[in-house]
Parts: sequence; C-alpha cells; structure tokens
Amino acid sequence: MTTTPKVIIFTDLDGTLLDRDTYSFAPAQPALDMIRKKGIPLVFSSSKTRAEMELYRERAGNDHPFIAENGGAVFVPSHYFSFRFPYDRERDGYRVFELGTLHVKLVETLNVVKKETGISIKGFSDLSKEEVFSLCGLSGDEAEFARKREYDEPFIIEGKESHVDVVRRKIEEKGMQYAWGGRFHHILGNNDKGKAVGILKGLYENQFFSISTLGIGDSPNDYPMLAAVDHPFLLRGQGSSLPEVPPGEPAWVIVDGTGPAVWNKVILNFLGCRRNGSGGDDRCG
Amino acid sequence: MTTTPKVIIFTDLDGTLLDRDTYSFAPAQPALDMIRKKGIPLVFSSSKTRAEMELYRERAGNDHPFIAENGGAVFVPSHYFSFRFPYDRERDGYRVFELGTLHVKLVETLNVVKKETGISIKGFSDLSKEEVFSLCGLSGDEAEFARKREYDEPFIIEGKESHVDVVRRKIEEKGMQYAWGGRFHHILGNNDKGKAVGILKGLYENQFFSISTLGIGDSPNDYPMLAAVDHPFLLRGQGSSLPEVPPGEPAWVIVDGTGPAVWNKVILNFLGCRRNGSGGDDRCG
Repeated sequence: MTTTPKVIIFTDLDGTLLDRDTYSFAPAQPALDMIRKKGIPLVFSSSKTRAEMELYRERAGNDHPFIAENGGAVFVPSHYFSFRFPYDRERDGYRVFELGTLHVKLVETLNVVKKETGISIKGFSDLSKEEVFSLCGLSGDEAEFARKREYDEPFIIEGKESHVDVVRRKIEEKGMQYAWGGRFHHILGNNDKGKAVGILKGLYENQFFSISTLGIGDSPNDYPMLAAVDHPFLLRGQGSSLPEVPPGEPAWVIVDGTGPAVWNKVILNFLGCRRNGSGGDDRCG
Repeated sequence: MTTTPKVIIFTDLDGTLLDRDTYSFAPAQPALDMIRKKGIPLVFSSSKTRAEMELYRERAGNDHPFIAENGGAVFVPSHYFSFRFPYDRERDGYRVFELGTLHVKLVETLNVVKKETGISIKGFSDLSKEEVFSLCGLSGDEAEFARKREYDEPFIIEGKESHVDVVRRKIEEKGMQYAWGGRFHHILGNNDKGKAVGILKGLYENQFFSISTLGIGDSPNDYPMLAAVDHPFLLRGQGSSLPEVPPGEPAWVIVDGTGPAVWNKVILNFLGCRRNGSGGDDRCG
C-alpha cells in the first residue's frame, strides 16, 4: 500500500462550475460539500477579474488561492501557506504573483496599435461606464467588478472583418497576445491559466509533498490548465465545436455536457462518491 | 494521510474496450500496459460467452476473473484468491458462480412460450450451425464460440411487430427476462452485470480490505454494473440515444465517444497518467 497524494482541484468558472446563463452553481452543491468535508483545496481559475472572483468565492464559501484574468495573476491569501515563498507583491491580504502585463502597459500598446494601423479601436478604458454596461448586458456590482481589469484590456474594432487580422498581427508583433472572448477582442500579456497552475502546484507540493491535480474546464483558454494537471476533464456542450484536443494529450476525457450539474458528476465520480453527501456515504474516495 | 485503496476495473468489451466494428483493442494498449504495470485487476464483463471471452483474455494477456453472458456466470481462476470461499461449481480450472438460469431450462421455457402463444419462434438451438453463421455474419472460431451460450438463448420471431410484446410478457410472466440484443431477441434468467460485480467486489474486499472500483460501459446492459461501482463512466457515441441515466445516480460521468481510444483516455486519466507509459512518466497515479 502507498499513501494517498493530496488532491487539488483547479476549476474554470463560466460554463463549468457556473451555469453559462444564470451564473448559478446550485447543482454543484453536493460535490462542493464533499470537497469541503474532505479538506480538498478548490482553486477557481477564470478569465474574470479579481473583484468578480471575490464575489463567487464569498458565495461559495471558498477561501483558497485563485487565478484571475486568464492567469494574469495568482492570488494567495497571505496566511494560507505556512512556509516562506517569493511573490511579486502583497496587497489587500493576498500574496500576488503577477504573470500578466499590467493594464496600463496594455492600454499604451493598444494606443500604439491604433496609431500605427489607423484602424478605429475603442478600448474599455475609452468607454464611459454606461457604454460598458450596455455593451456587456451586465448590471450592478457585477458590471462594476467586470470593469476592474488589471491584466487584460477588452476592445472593439469599428470597421471591416479584415481589420481584425491586422490588429492581431500588430499586437503579436509587439510581444503580446490577442484573444477573442466571444464578445470583445482582448489584448493581454503572455500569461495563461497553465502557468498560473504551475505556480500553485509548486506551492502545494511544498506543503503536502505528494499531490494529485484535477482540472476541469470547457474552453480553449482552459487547455493550458488541462495540460498542467494529472486528471484533465474537458466539458463539451451539445453541438459545440471546440478546437481539437492537442495531440500528445492522451488522458483528456471529453465529458458530454457543460455547467454545474455535469461538474457535480465529474467531481463526485472522481471522489468515488455514489451518493449526494447528505445520505452519509462515507466510503467515497 | 490515508492508505490508497486497491483499484479494481470492471469493463464492458463490445464498443467499449473493443472497437464495435473491428473488435480491435489496439488503441487502448497504453492504458492496458499501465494497468498491468500497476498490478490492477481488470475484469472483463460482457454479454459474450465464456468461450468468446477466453479468446480476448488470451489476446490481451488477461488472467483475472471475468463475467460472461451479462452476469450469467462469474469465472474465477481456481488459484486466483488465496482464501476459501463458496462457489457453485469447479470446472476447467475455474471456480464458477452461476447467477443465470441454465440454458436447457431457458430452451424449455421458450418452447412453452411458443406453444402457449402459437407464435413462430426460432431459437438458436433450433437452427443449424450454418443458419447461425449466416444470421450472425461471423465466421471461424468466433462464430463457433458465440454459439456456446450457457445462460442465454437468442431467438428470432417470424411474424408481426406486435408479437414481440406478447412474447416478452409471456417470458416475464414465467419469471425470466426478455432482452433485445440489437440482432436477436434473448431469453435469460434474472442475472445482470451488477450482481456479478457485487460478488467479485466481495471477494476483492476480502483480499485487499479496502478497494475502489471503476466501471466503464456503453449500453443499458452496463447500467447495473455502473450502479455497483465507485467511479462509473458511460461512453456515448455521436448521435446515440441511450436511455436516461437512472435518477439518484449523481456520479455517472457521460463521456463523449466510444471504443478503445476513448477507453484509453478514461483509464489514463483515472490513473493520473499524462503520458503513454512508454515515456516513463512514473508520477502517474
């Protein structure tokens, strides 16, 4: 017999733990309860901003580290690990790793792109609060928090389809990343969720010595995270056309369905929990 | 830290470990190698006959117990477990649990159904070897072995669609099960893969004390097996319409795709193996 490694779970939020339309995680509650009962670290890993993620951490009662803005930064609660480790800055009770390029630098670069191409580009920073609200279809705190981007500048392009390629090439020439987020174009640094997972894996290994990592997501921006974990699960909705799973990744299980009910199944299955937790099935895991 | 329970894997064959058309398991070889390296018992659980399953056990180099004819019988190699346990009979080097109804009794019942309904029914036992061969599209040893059914009688009904319901009800009245196998009707006793899994779980628990069971299949006859294991995985092909997963089964993960390549992914993922085994990734599991 060998000893069990400590399980660490890395999860995407939108469309994965959270319902894509309602943002509810209620159907995942049985697995969330079991994770808490077993003392398993659950690390939220999202393209959302720190301010948005703090809302969901509070709602889910989560006090573990988290990965914001597609790996732009890793936030570790200051007293979470009991040993010393290097980090970029301490702020608001977190030790922060900054993997992304600071927002001010992104805006600066985007302005240079605008000038050099002559294409009409409007960044979030150029828009009024009201314009952002109406473009995003968000309201209240969530819209306010979605604006607090620190490592990513969303923008719109006014003009022809072909302008997008010109802008993309220009951004990449300048050593940054272009991404299409479904609603806006984005300029960001060379960060991704996988690099952020790598940092947290190192810290958890220092704490627990032997760890086993599960990753779960539903989008291409989750691929670097899935490539960095031992147990990768990719959720796929009906009729969704995800890019091919990268070759050389034999262990990626593609699960039929998305959202919190499917998340619940994957986690309960992984933990070996046949019942909902309330039934008192203690054999699980 | 706790001790790791011994993993036991129960797997369906057709459409799951074996390709539905070619019967090849080649794409699953990396996971099969890893299972062997880790000393994990891999239990074949199929609707195939003992004679058919012995072919695939030999091809895959498998010497573990197996479940034949949809749980009609469990075959345990005689010296596999080191302790004494009750079984139904010892035969050809196996200790056999007979959960199904013996073939002679099934044929007898089917003849009574034929008389009482007046419907024209032809059982395998009524057909010549050549008729069976041409109906099954099989040839050589495999066809011969497929005929050696001990706990299940396949049959055809000559007549109207509505006759099927009449025959089904008559069989159930007599305390037996009717099943549609995709090509033939079947009469069998009250056995299923889940009951057979239950017996083997008991034996493995006696041997290892703490076990963790994975089940993987693609058809309704796998559902009782999936309901009996800790980690149930149901494979679903493109456009296949499987009956709903039974309610109260929160941990069933429905995997996108079927066959040995998908089987390989699920098992490597479960074992935490990121590489193919040949690469020497020893962190897995």
